[in-house]
Amino acid sequence: MATMDDIARRLGISRGTVSKALSGAADVSETMRKSVVETAVELGYSRISRTGESRRVCVFVENMAYEKPEDFGWEIITGFRKLAEPGGYQVDIVPLTEELQRSIPYDEYMLRSGYQGSLFLGLSLLDPWMADFRTCAAPTVLYDNQVRSNPAVTQVGIDNIEGMDLAVARLKELGHRKVGYLSTALGSYIYQARYAAFFHALRQNKLPAQRELAGYAFRLTECLEKHLPRLLDRGCTAIICSHDLLAHMLLIHCLELGISVPGQLSVIGFDDLPLCQYTIPPLSTVRQNRTELGKSAFYALSSLIERTPISTLLLHAELVERRSAGPGPDRETTEQQ
Amino acid sequence: MATMDDIARRLGISRGTVSKALSGAADVSETMRKSVVETAVELGYSRISRTGESRRVCVFVENMAYEKPEDFGWEIITGFRKLAEPGGYQVDIVPLTEELQRSIPYDEYMLRSGYQGSLFLGLSLLDPWMADFRTCAAPTVLYDNQVRSNPAVTQVGIDNIEGMDLAVARLKELGHRKVGYLSTALGSYIYQARYAAFFHALRQNKLPAQRELAGYAFRLTECLEKHLPRLLDRGCTAIICSHDLLAHMLLIHCLELGISVPGQLSVIGFDDLPLCQYTIPPLSTVRQNRTELGKSAFYALSSLIERTPISTLLLHAELVERRSAGPGPDRETTEQQ
Repeated sequence: MATMDDIARRLGISRGTVSKALSGAADVSETMRKSVVETAVELGYSRISRTGESRRVCVFVENMAYEKPEDFGWEIITGFRKLAEPGGYQVDIVPLTEELQRSIPYDEYMLRSGYQGSLFLGLSLLDPWMADFRTCAAPTVLYDNQVRSNPAVTQVGIDNIEGMDLAVARLKELGHRKVGYLSTALGSYIYQARYAAFFHALRQNKLPAQRELAGYAFRLTECLEKHLPRLLDRGCTAIICSHDLLAHMLLIHCLELGISVPGQLSVIGFDDLPLCQYTIPPLSTVRQNRTELGKSAFYALSSLIERTPISTLLLHAELVERRSAGPGPDRETTEQQ
Repeated sequence: MATMDDIARRLGISRGTVSKALSGAADVSETMRKSVVETAVELGYSRISRTGESRRVCVFVENMAYEKPEDFGWEIITGFRKLAEPGGYQVDIVPLTEELQRSIPYDEYMLRSGYQGSLFLGLSLLDPWMADFRTCAAPTVLYDNQVRSNPAVTQVGIDNIEGMDLAVARLKELGHRKVGYLSTALGSYIYQARYAAFFHALRQNKLPAQRELAGYAFRLTECLEKHLPRLLDRGCTAIICSHDLLAHMLLIHCLELGISVPGQLSVIGFDDLPLCQYTIPPLSTVRQNRTELGKSAFYALSSLIERTPISTLLLHAELVERRSAGPGPDRETTEQQ
């Protein structure tokens, strides 16, 4: 692990100048600050707080609402702050734009901004900084994203394999034999993981698992128009959706088409957004406990800052049954007999 | 979550009697204690400590040495205790025998013994209590074992996929094109996971990944005698072993057969046991940071006790390079040219 002394030695300057440059003191020239930060990044230096020094971390948020209790990110950030702030950390929220990512390498941004670590919510695989995470020195927690082989990076989320298995096993128990899957585009780690988890769950539960039972598209409307008729034609009596918003659109679409849910089609979502209680019918879904996820993310980040290299921290998934999933053909036949 | 009141109501006795029976007070008959414990188990009650009450957890140890610093379990248990004891927990070590497991269901043992939670080291898939973990109420952390879908159970270990990938990627970098794998029998979760991780790593690194490149057997000597000649015949110039003891036996076997390591064969182990520094040559291996694993296991257990349902907590793997892996055919050719 590189120290301020290493940086000073490399540049042939004093440790005091390095310290000033990294803490943003006014009496260091911009040129000097730039070469100190660049050398720090090159040597893999990351900020370690000393007693009395202020401790700052940030949460990067991309395309994700988090300002109101009903927003997806709200509870995660609240859970994170609940542990961070009493622990003496200042938590900043930073909007994660492509512009920011293109303007500066990640480690350099972290050092210049004086952050000791960060949590990322809502990254896609194409985000420019994704490549930086393979080698970054700054302690980094990725929610629903995975970067292996860098001891400075932790993945936090729920166990998607377990969640999908709970949904499929329950549908099988309800008498469904053909279960379909609809997803947004597979351009992010989490949707790839859930897609794979769906087929894993079908095989675990000994249900048909042909690729044609799943459909995905970039736009949700396109996904429904293109794949729903196909899944129904193939005899699916239940559909799991990659996330609640898609499940909610599916419910509305079924209402328009006169398909009764759960009478003719059972629907299960993923995430348990606050809106699930208010859809028609209320949506059965796989729950992510977002407050606990936020707390776990802070635990992981503080562990990384203390040099405990956590790779993965997953919470158990939970199936929340409301009213959008009901008996399937097998169960109905049994009940009629 | 069942409470003492629920147990009292079910049995038509007072809450005080339930409390006494569960805490092992002398003025409760053995018959009464038995029915209280059975009802507690049936209702899924698990012990929650109150302020001032002593808090006790246990570590079950099966066939695993842990009494001296050079033993595998030593550092895990030391790490666990380092967090548990200052946190006010008493930690007992319980030898895990098949006899114990056959004599009493797991939840009942935990309630009768007054433990609030436990850590298991060294279970095999055939252990009688493995079935209990699917539904147990007692907070339970399994080291290197996985039981999905029970919010009371957490898996702790290192990221084996990452570890195997580090080993294979390094061998490829060294110029090896045919990498083999030797393993003890696949009768435990961890050896199944590493076996799968080996093939995953070959594919990730675009190396040949035929099933014949791996061999396993119950006894280590049998494994070497049966599979080593086969792997060498197939042109393997490097072998990864499922754990360090097998790798150590392979080094000795090579010495006897006059096969130079790493000159003719590169060997990489798994675990980084203390002995790896003393083998001939010193063994390159995938490291498990056992002290941090012990601490993480306690974090996971205390989280479960506080009702935060952690499913999985994995630490980053690390490749420790000593002297048993060296340049392979591709690299040697290049160097000779």
